[in-house]
Amino acid sequence: MQERTVEYSRTEQTHIVQPADLNGGGRLFGGTLLKMIDEIAAIVAMRHCGFKTVTTAAIDNLVFKSGAYVNDLIVLIGYVIYTGKTSMEVRVDTYVERTDGMRYPINRAHIVLVALDEKNRPTAVPQLVLQNDIQREEFLQAQKRRNTKTNI
Amino acid sequence: MQERTVEYSRTEQTHIVQPADLNGGGRLFGGTLLKMIDEIAAIVAMRHCGFKTVTTAAIDNLVFKSGAYVNDLIVLIGYVIYTGKTSMEVRVDTYVERTDGMRYPINRAHIVLVALDEKNRPTAVPQLVLQNDIQREEFLQAQKRRNTKTNI
Amino acid sequence: MQERTVEYSRTEQTHIVQPADLNGGGRLFGGTLLKMIDEIAAIVAMRHCGFKTVTTAAIDNLVFKSGAYVNDLIVLIGYVIYTGKTSMEVRVDTYVERTDGMRYPINRAHIVLVALDEKNRPTAVPQLVLQNDIQREEFLQAQKRRNTKTNI
Amino acid sequence: MQERTVEYSRTEQTHIVQPADLNGGGRLFGGTLLKMIDEIAAIVAMRHCGFKTVTTAAIDNLVFKSGAYVNDLIVLIGYVIYTGKTSMEVRVDTYVERTDGMRYPINRAHIVLVALDEKNRPTAVPQLVLQNDIQREEFLQAQKRRNTKTNI
Amino acid sequence: MQERTVEYSRTEQTHIVQPADLNGGGRLFGGTLLKMIDEIAAIVAMRHCGFKTVTTAAIDNLVFKSGAYVNDLIVLIGYVIYTGKTSMEVRVDTYVERTDGMRYPINRAHIVLVALDEKNRPTAVPQLVLQNDIQREEFLQAQKRRNTKTNI
Amino acid sequence: MQERTVEYSRTEQTHIVQPADLNGGGRLFGGTLLKMIDEIAAIVAMRHCGFKTVTTAAIDNLVFKSGAYVNDLIVLIGYVIYTGKTSMEVRVDTYVERTDGMRYPINRAHIVLVALDEKNRPTAVPQLVLQNDIQREEFLQAQKRRNTKTNI
Repeated sequence: MQERTVEYSRTEQTHIVQPADLNGGGRLFGGTLLKMIDEIAAIVAMRHCGFKTVTTAAIDNLVFKSGAYVNDLIVLIGYVIYTGKTSMEVRVDTYVERTDGMRYPINRAHIVLVALDEKNRPTAVPQLVLQNDIQREEFLQAQKRRNTKTNI
Repeated sequence: MQERTVEYSRTEQTHIVQPADLNGGGRLFGGTLLKMIDEIAAIVAMRHCGFKTVTTAAIDNLVFKSGAYVNDLIVLIGYVIYTGKTSMEVRVDTYVERTDGMRYPINRAHIVLVALDEKNRPTAVPQLVLQNDIQREEFLQAQKRRNTKTNI
Repeated sequence: MQERTVEYSRTEQTHIVQPADLNGGGRLFGGTLLKMIDEIAAIVAMRHCGFKTVTTAAIDNLVFKSGAYVNDLIVLIGYVIYTGKTSMEVRVDTYVERTDGMRYPINRAHIVLVALDEKNRPTAVPQLVLQNDIQREEFLQAQKRRNTKTNI
Repeated sequence: MQERTVEYSRTEQTHIVQPADLNGGGRLFGGTLLKMIDEIAAIVAMRHCGFKTVTTAAIDNLVFKSGAYVNDLIVLIGYVIYTGKTSMEVRVDTYVERTDGMRYPINRAHIVLVALDEKNRPTAVPQLVLQNDIQREEFLQAQKRRNTKTNI
Repeated sequence: MQERTVEYSRTEQTHIVQPADLNGGGRLFGGTLLKMIDEIAAIVAMRHCGFKTVTTAAIDNLVFKSGAYVNDLIVLIGYVIYTGKTSMEVRVDTYVERTDGMRYPINRAHIVLVALDEKNRPTAVPQLVLQNDIQREEFLQAQKRRNTKTNI
Repeated sequence: MQERTVEYSRTEQTHIVQPADLNGGGRLFGGTLLKMIDEIAAIVAMRHCGFKTVTTAAIDNLVFKSGAYVNDLIVLIGYVIYTGKTSMEVRVDTYVERTDGMRYPINRAHIVLVALDEKNRPTAVPQLVLQNDIQREEFLQAQKRRNTKTNI
């Protein structure tokens, strides 16, 4: 099975916050943002493993640093930072893009997804080619998170 | 400000998994479950703090133990386990209810929500009355999680 | 086939009224409430009959006693009040829960659902065990409604 | 205030049953049909009363005579059959249109809607001009239903 | 295969613009209108060709002449103006209906749809019976558009 | 007002085709693709003009070259190719990305959007800086389309 770089499956997504995405306080509903994060993580993982079925196995600590409001652009950037035998950890950074054209971070998430074969059993995924020190560091951090949890 | 028990805002929710909730592999889309979890957490927090506006500040490690499929019932149970000055931590347990009438756990999440006043500033919430050792233990665990994070 | 009590399948549901649920006059869209009522009735019926496929056959007089507005909680409580050979009548009471923590009734509905086998033919359902006079009275009322209609 | 004929606000609507509208048994979800019925009733009432805000007050016995399946066309026809001082009763007939181009009835509903002024108070609606015996008969039937209920 | 008139499949559709259909500027989201136009075109084509599967092949110049706002009624009228061997061109006129009961045009679209057999291959459709000069003129105009494009 | 390059607002979007996006024939519903195209065009235009309100004024010939199916990735790439005084023309190329990691074109669209001020009147947009011959050629083609239409 072919190895793949971090860049191979890197995905960027942009959404306009519409009135239908707001809660009664006029802020982007947290659950709607979570759905966007889970969707981009699935796209990244599908691209990395060659369009196998993927399923979300775990999501790491999410911290919402700031709200988003109507007409804000939500920009999500996702890429694989770690691969196990059948799992992939995807990092998703979420930004709000405002009128000055700048992006302000509002969330960082680590999502673990597992590739499945036709019988819904975990199946091997391409390993990650690490090309620089930042990628190697993120891989080690993800590995450490993995080792401190027995249930993934 | 009135104190409130854990039971005061306890909420149970049930959803049928419909075809429109499935991903291409026939499983409940992870993002859809996350939206359900965030919604029940918001309901619990609104009930606890007397219908103030609430916003999701953080979500702890989520582990998806099992998939859900069409016609499964998804049962979510949420209750407050910790209150800070302006924040509430809500635990949400998610089950699949199958044909034998039994509930099988598929997810446990801890969600931190903050109450906001009319100007979107954090505002005080009723403190939690702990009524037994289990509730006191969960409160301490949540407090410990809080202290190991500087960003909530 | 096992008999089942009214309590066995009793279900409670809570929804936050979000901006996306409103009509142009700022009120909860009637059709959205009807969808909530039909969904909880289906959950109750599925639980009662052991997760067979169920389909809505009839809905009795619905009266909307009051509107609901953004950030209101809609609480729906459903339970079986009558069983025929292949049909179940579910009563759904809908409340608005407001800032005082009290629930104000806005709707009462009686929904008749039929259980279907794999070939979409009506199939027998567990009979209802009546445990007190209120349940016996509701059963009789439902039976009376049934007898005055030839088409259910 | 101008009187208006039954024909003035008569509305016909057609929907394709899409996979996303189905329940797990492959049938059109009852709640989705109820939402379609409530929407067309609101359109009819808005047209009759000159685009005032309208709200659903009551729905009469609904009987689902047959299911609908993917790619079926759902045809809804609605018109006013009765007007009170501030309320309108709309009849909605629902059909499935199949490959032979014929329409088969699946539901008949009577919906009572009330017109509201800017302060959400009931406000007068144009009276109905009855132009033939069928319309006069339907008006009388609606009036009779109204008199047997104290709560509309 | 039976020929069919223009009137045979003529379809009219009405939607209320709800808050959930608006963009952040309070106007009907263009994409939502496009979805309505595509849906009515599919209904017209399905009716014309006897409920075969149809798929959108091309959409001609769309010009949005005016916006639509909350509580406006959107009226769409669609009918077949041209048939090729396996394709149908449907014209959809979109109006806003306002408080004076009048309809103001906001869009005109020409959509080409192709009928598909069970193996997803283009399949023959009933030819159009032209009954007056206006229909013959529209047919010629559509034919001209078709000839200037090599890719439909 | 600052000029802006074509690259400044270039946007790429990816969606997984989910079961809920399919029509009864198992293909991506054309209207759903149109909504995706309109949304990315609005994002590109908002970025170009510094987050003013934008509204779709016209859409040029759309040709759907191929269908898309469940689990396909839909990739949309949009960028400004022409600016008038108050309008921007955005080109959106749509691809299906399949298991081989390659992208196959399924649609090309040209969308004209207008920027609006707070009173919903057209307002000036930054002019486009053309940096190479391809961009100059696309600008001229768009200008030519504009001149042959009197209604944009």
